[in-house]
Amino acid sequence: MSITPTVKRILDNYESDNPGTKANLARILMQGRLGGTGKLVILPVDQGFEHGPARSFAANPAGYDPHYHYGLAIEAGLSAYAAPLGMLEAAAGTFAGQIPTILKINSSNSLSRLKEDPSQAVTGSVADALRLGCSAIGFTIYPGSDAQFAMMEEIRALAEEAKAVGLAVVIWSYPRGGTLSKAGETAIDICAYAAHMAALLGAHIIKVKPPTDYLELEAAKKVYLEQKIDISTQTKRYEHVVQSCFNGRRIVVFSGGESKDVPALLAEARAIRDGGGNGSIMGRNTFQRPKAEALALLDQLINVYLGKD
Amino acid sequence: MSITPTVKRILDNYESDNPGTKANLARILMQGRLGGTGKLVILPVDQGFEHGPARSFAANPAGYDPHYHYGLAIEAGLSAYAAPLGMLEAAAGTFAGQIPTILKINSSNSLSRLKEDPSQAVTGSVADALRLGCSAIGFTIYPGSDAQFAMMEEIRALAEEAKAVGLAVVIWSYPRGGTLSKAGETAIDICAYAAHMAALLGAHIIKVKPPTDYLELEAAKKVYLEQKIDISTQTKRYEHVVQSCFNGRRIVVFSGGESKDVPALLAEARAIRDGGGNGSIMGRNTFQRPKAEALALLDQLINVYLGKD
Amino acid sequence: MSITPTVKRILDNYESDNPGTKANLARILMQGRLGGTGKLVILPVDQGFEHGPARSFAANPAGYDPHYHYGLAIEAGLSAYAAPLGMLEAAAGTFAGQIPTILKINSSNSLSRLKEDPSQAVTGSVADALRLGCSAIGFTIYPGSDAQFAMMEEIRALAEEAKAVGLAVVIWSYPRGGTLSKAGETAIDICAYAAHMAALLGAHIIKVKPPTDYLELEAAKKVYLEQKIDISTQTKRYEHVVQSCFNGRRIVVFSGGESKDVPALLAEARAIRDGGGNGSIMGRNTFQRPKAEALALLDQLINVYLGKD
Amino acid sequence: MSITPTVKRILDNYESDNPGTKANLARILMQGRLGGTGKLVILPVDQGFEHGPARSFAANPAGYDPHYHYGLAIEAGLSAYAAPLGMLEAAAGTFAGQIPTILKINSSNSLSRLKEDPSQAVTGSVADALRLGCSAIGFTIYPGSDAQFAMMEEIRALAEEAKAVGLAVVIWSYPRGGTLSKAGETAIDICAYAAHMAALLGAHIIKVKPPTDYLELEAAKKVYLEQKIDISTQTKRYEHVVQSCFNGRRIVVFSGGESKDVPALLAEARAIRDGGGNGSIMGRNTFQRPKAEALALLDQLINVYLGKD
Amino acid sequence: MSITPTVKRILDNYESDNPGTKANLARILMQGRLGGTGKLVILPVDQGFEHGPARSFAANPAGYDPHYHYGLAIEAGLSAYAAPLGMLEAAAGTFAGQIPTILKINSSNSLSRLKEDPSQAVTGSVADALRLGCSAIGFTIYPGSDAQFAMMEEIRALAEEAKAVGLAVVIWSYPRGGTLSKAGETAIDICAYAAHMAALLGAHIIKVKPPTDYLELEAAKKVYLEQKIDISTQTKRYEHVVQSCFNGRRIVVFSGGESKDVPALLAEARAIRDGGGNGSIMGRNTFQRPKAEALALLDQLINVYLGKD
Repeated sequence: MSITPTVKRILDNYESDNPGTKANLARILMQGRLGGTGKLVILPVDQGFEHGPARSFAANPAGYDPHYHYGLAIEAGLSAYAAPLGMLEAAAGTFAGQIPTILKINSSNSLSRLKEDPSQAVTGSVADALRLGCSAIGFTIYPGSDAQFAMMEEIRALAEEAKAVGLAVVIWSYPRGGTLSKAGETAIDICAYAAHMAALLGAHIIKVKPPTDYLELEAAKKVYLEQKIDISTQTKRYEHVVQSCFNGRRIVVFSGGESKDVPALLAEARAIRDGGGNGSIMGRNTFQRPKAEALALLDQLINVYLGKD
Repeated sequence: MSITPTVKRILDNYESDNPGTKANLARILMQGRLGGTGKLVILPVDQGFEHGPARSFAANPAGYDPHYHYGLAIEAGLSAYAAPLGMLEAAAGTFAGQIPTILKINSSNSLSRLKEDPSQAVTGSVADALRLGCSAIGFTIYPGSDAQFAMMEEIRALAEEAKAVGLAVVIWSYPRGGTLSKAGETAIDICAYAAHMAALLGAHIIKVKPPTDYLELEAAKKVYLEQKIDISTQTKRYEHVVQSCFNGRRIVVFSGGESKDVPALLAEARAIRDGGGNGSIMGRNTFQRPKAEALALLDQLINVYLGKD
Repeated sequence: MSITPTVKRILDNYESDNPGTKANLARILMQGRLGGTGKLVILPVDQGFEHGPARSFAANPAGYDPHYHYGLAIEAGLSAYAAPLGMLEAAAGTFAGQIPTILKINSSNSLSRLKEDPSQAVTGSVADALRLGCSAIGFTIYPGSDAQFAMMEEIRALAEEAKAVGLAVVIWSYPRGGTLSKAGETAIDICAYAAHMAALLGAHIIKVKPPTDYLELEAAKKVYLEQKIDISTQTKRYEHVVQSCFNGRRIVVFSGGESKDVPALLAEARAIRDGGGNGSIMGRNTFQRPKAEALALLDQLINVYLGKD
Repeated sequence: MSITPTVKRILDNYESDNPGTKANLARILMQGRLGGTGKLVILPVDQGFEHGPARSFAANPAGYDPHYHYGLAIEAGLSAYAAPLGMLEAAAGTFAGQIPTILKINSSNSLSRLKEDPSQAVTGSVADALRLGCSAIGFTIYPGSDAQFAMMEEIRALAEEAKAVGLAVVIWSYPRGGTLSKAGETAIDICAYAAHMAALLGAHIIKVKPPTDYLELEAAKKVYLEQKIDISTQTKRYEHVVQSCFNGRRIVVFSGGESKDVPALLAEARAIRDGGGNGSIMGRNTFQRPKAEALALLDQLINVYLGKD
Repeated sequence: MSITPTVKRILDNYESDNPGTKANLARILMQGRLGGTGKLVILPVDQGFEHGPARSFAANPAGYDPHYHYGLAIEAGLSAYAAPLGMLEAAAGTFAGQIPTILKINSSNSLSRLKEDPSQAVTGSVADALRLGCSAIGFTIYPGSDAQFAMMEEIRALAEEAKAVGLAVVIWSYPRGGTLSKAGETAIDICAYAAHMAALLGAHIIKVKPPTDYLELEAAKKVYLEQKIDISTQTKRYEHVVQSCFNGRRIVVFSGGESKDVPALLAEARAIRDGGGNGSIMGRNTFQRPKAEALALLDQLINVYLGKD
């Protein structure tokens, strides 16, 4: 596998990582139809944990089978596939070497009553990621929650271990809990802050939600107004998040959130692209559609990132 | 020991496991009268921990002796025998190699006042399972309880350790605590969710309770109605649970619950069989009966799974 | 040391233990005047921790000196001597090899205000037991207390470690805390349950308090009445506890509790003997008496177990 | 690198440290324009964690890029650069060997609602510091907070590990939480106490805030008055803090706190110098200014410590 | 170094310790003007942690310098010097081999609001003690506090580690918290109990406060009266504490508490001596006085223990 100059430039930003980790980042960045462009689209399937099997897969029952998602990601030419332990165990042998995988290493669920103090269970290990042939581990933090320090300390230890064995680290940074308002969870100041903390924690790839133009913290609001930080458009907001990821030295991708219609999803992707973001991580919007529809959507999405749309 | 094509197909689903673990799954699947059919009946005797000795064994005092249960399981031609540490220690030497055993590695008891926040004590280890010649470890999680994340993290670590040394992992997934209603503990949405989480946690064999047609979570109810998921009959509900276990890629067995009459137990088994479930795990309904009665019941049960009834 | 057929039969019940642990059980069972009979009397001196030095030793000040208790146990021809770390450290060199010792590895004290949630501090280790030449470790659990799961997990780990190095494990199973009534702590259903849980946890020797005919748990009471379990006499109750210890496959001894007069103590011992119990563990009733008196009492007690009284 | 007699005298105070740690202290003390004088100015950039990216870097957007801060510290001739994991990872390769670095190993953030019980997450390790070529680890304690014992135990373990591999230890000692008043956080008795505790914990370099003449604790106030401890001027207060750092045997530096005007900052530095303090650690006052302004300010600051102003 | 018969007799009481630990006990017992007598006077300087630098050292500012205390202890001919990590690190190289040292391995401070549930932070390790050339570790427990079990478990682990590498263990046993009244903290029943628990925990040297004739616990009071335990004089009370330390088989020393006048201190020492106690551990009463005064006081104190006063 030779890499493109664009990918080389991205890898150079990871100047403290060992060749093993760089190789795994390269595998993700060179995979699929976006391979070599510095853009990426990742398929995450951890909704079974978060919402249960029926809410996740009944709309498209093929998704009950872990093999389906590997197939979808490969056929659509995506960059990587992310899922919890059991989902990978049930298909990693069949699809070994066909697409980079990310072991999602912690998960919550809808039965937890700890809504006030959200947290997650660690459900996988670095050793699991290695034996399953993964390129990266994925971990969620909830900045703002009472459990945030404990979660940060968990990923600190897991990330140190992962980097030492040449794996990459993906952090889902989802502000939640504590004093945060519901609107605050996707406020631009909070989203940029969450992305920045993931970068400070040593993430190679950062995943956040699309930010709104709301400002949550008074102290931050003051600065955004004084410094005239432009957050008026989606594109400008993505630019600001990219800037908050070490001025673009770290890969940042955005989740799709709840199901939306296709035009809205594509508009979002165009703004991500124009704002300098690295791509999308999209689950329910794809695997809950019939396969043909999902492939069509992903084709359009990839075309956006290829600059064809 | 040669294995049947049916068992080979099941083992192939465990595509990330090492030959040691596959061999132990094969030992269970090839054991007894159901050996080779892909169906199994397991005898669990952990009620002494849960309810105390008199409530467990006074009805059939032979059961006070750990040797009795080994003998019963072997004589009835069952697939495996599961029990806590002390029960196995007291008989594993005598019956070594005669039936696969599962070390039940955590337990609760009736003296705990933590009804609001149910949990269990870890009372055995992977090293114990190895020295006692077990084929698997068994672990209970209480999805929904405040302790659920801690329990999931315990089994995560124990399962990783078990798989590395070639043991299989059985998860008892019993929703309980938190915001769950009493009816919700066996609601079909919750039962399928609980089975799915056990699969995501990497269980080889999943044990849940027979589901009712109740729906607990509003968000799930909406999907069951919209998607017209048929949960009207026992058979359909078992089908749905099997589907939630990676579309049948994971073995799922159902507990018998409190003592019932024989026709009810056999009807349940027929529904499990017809729904594609792998079998039953039945304790009190067998060892609390006089031995002859228990053997007769187990003979009928096995005949159901053999398709003779 | 050759062992008697009776002791051989007892050792055979420990069919999962290594020769090291069996040898240490044999040392205890072959020691002193009851050596070879399958009966045993143990001297425990952990009251200094539980009640302080004056309440423990002022009645017979010789007891302030750790050498005294070794001497008493040896002179009386007892089976073993149990004490916390410091007590053994201060005399184990002088009396090395003269009597089997049990390192009592956790302790509470009278200053703790955690009456509602009783627990203990772990104050010794398996390594301590080995360097002090002990034959066993001793550990207290409080079934029913909020700390019970933590305590069970402590002894689980310590017992695994002890068995691996050939030590025996003695569990003091004292129901306490949680929803238990004061009378419930010694109720026959609770006492049998506590003994059973110690057996399930893998204890070689189980220590419980003499049970009363009170029944604490409604669910259990129902079974005792329905199944007509005879708990009307001390002897019958001891029989029931022995039965709850894997139908006699585990050694069970009974504590003397608070000071009593000699006839009461001897009557209790006769009932233990007749009920199939293995013996007594008696502290305050011996070391708080002048030595001559204590030796006389122990002589009578041993005679009971020898069947001479 | 040869060292000056002044630096030699300082190193001699670290009489229990190994040559590795002394070498790293020497690297810091011999670096930049203050090299060899025993004075030092450190650039810390952990505000992204504490206040988020916009509040930290929008005033001078060059600061979003981790390379900027290395460049600023080197160009200004500073003694060392301190930052959290991600900030160092993103630039340590490029600037390897050009300036000593301090891995700031724990951090808090503005989203935490634990204002009443402030704490921090550990976000880096000694192994991280080594692989990134750092000379020291930096750690914040909050004396007075409910988390203080836990934080002290964290740095105890990390400091032991760091010293064993030849790293130096910098402790940020910031009294906070518990019964402390807001004014008490910078009271002279508390500041001196905080510095002393950092010294007792084994810090090589101690960082505290500039103290006011307020006295917080009644018991301390009594002693300050009785013993006529002069705390009337900044210089006298710095002298008292230096005295509290083992009578000057430990290096102590002072933070700049919130942005101030240049004359105030220089006056503070003169008082630190005249009071025998070792220097300044100044973040926001430098990197939030345009680079030319920041360099001019740092030039003046260094001139103060060189005795030229 | 040859040892006296008196010291030999004391060492013989430590019959379970390895030669390394005995050698360190011998170093303390053979050091200084009381060397060989079986008596000892120890200088502890941990007040900086407990009360802050000004309250500890302003009365005699020479004490801000860690070298001062080593010098004082050596010049006065004391038996050992005890201090926290930083204090030893700053002077242990200069004074290596001149006086046995005790690393005080946990500490509290005056900023903690946990008055209701007192605890301490562990601030040093056995490895620290070894690299600093110490003869012992020192650890405080608070019997009665809610943290008491945790503290006992900490010293259990640290003591096991210390003994294995030939260090001695000194336990400061200070009843505090929980249900204890203020008067109860120094009540004779509580003091004797605290000393006894330290002995049971395996301490080589026990440090308690001088007991009053108050009795705290009703159950104990009853025994003291019934058994006519004489606690009417200081001497009798010290005798009772010595008896509670395994009838004199463990070294017990008494702290001086808050500053007192010289006659009171000497009277206390005479009572300790006459009651069979092993000596004094005296901090503030010495290092807060001008050096000449401190030396004069220590000379008188030593003369008391030499039987000259």
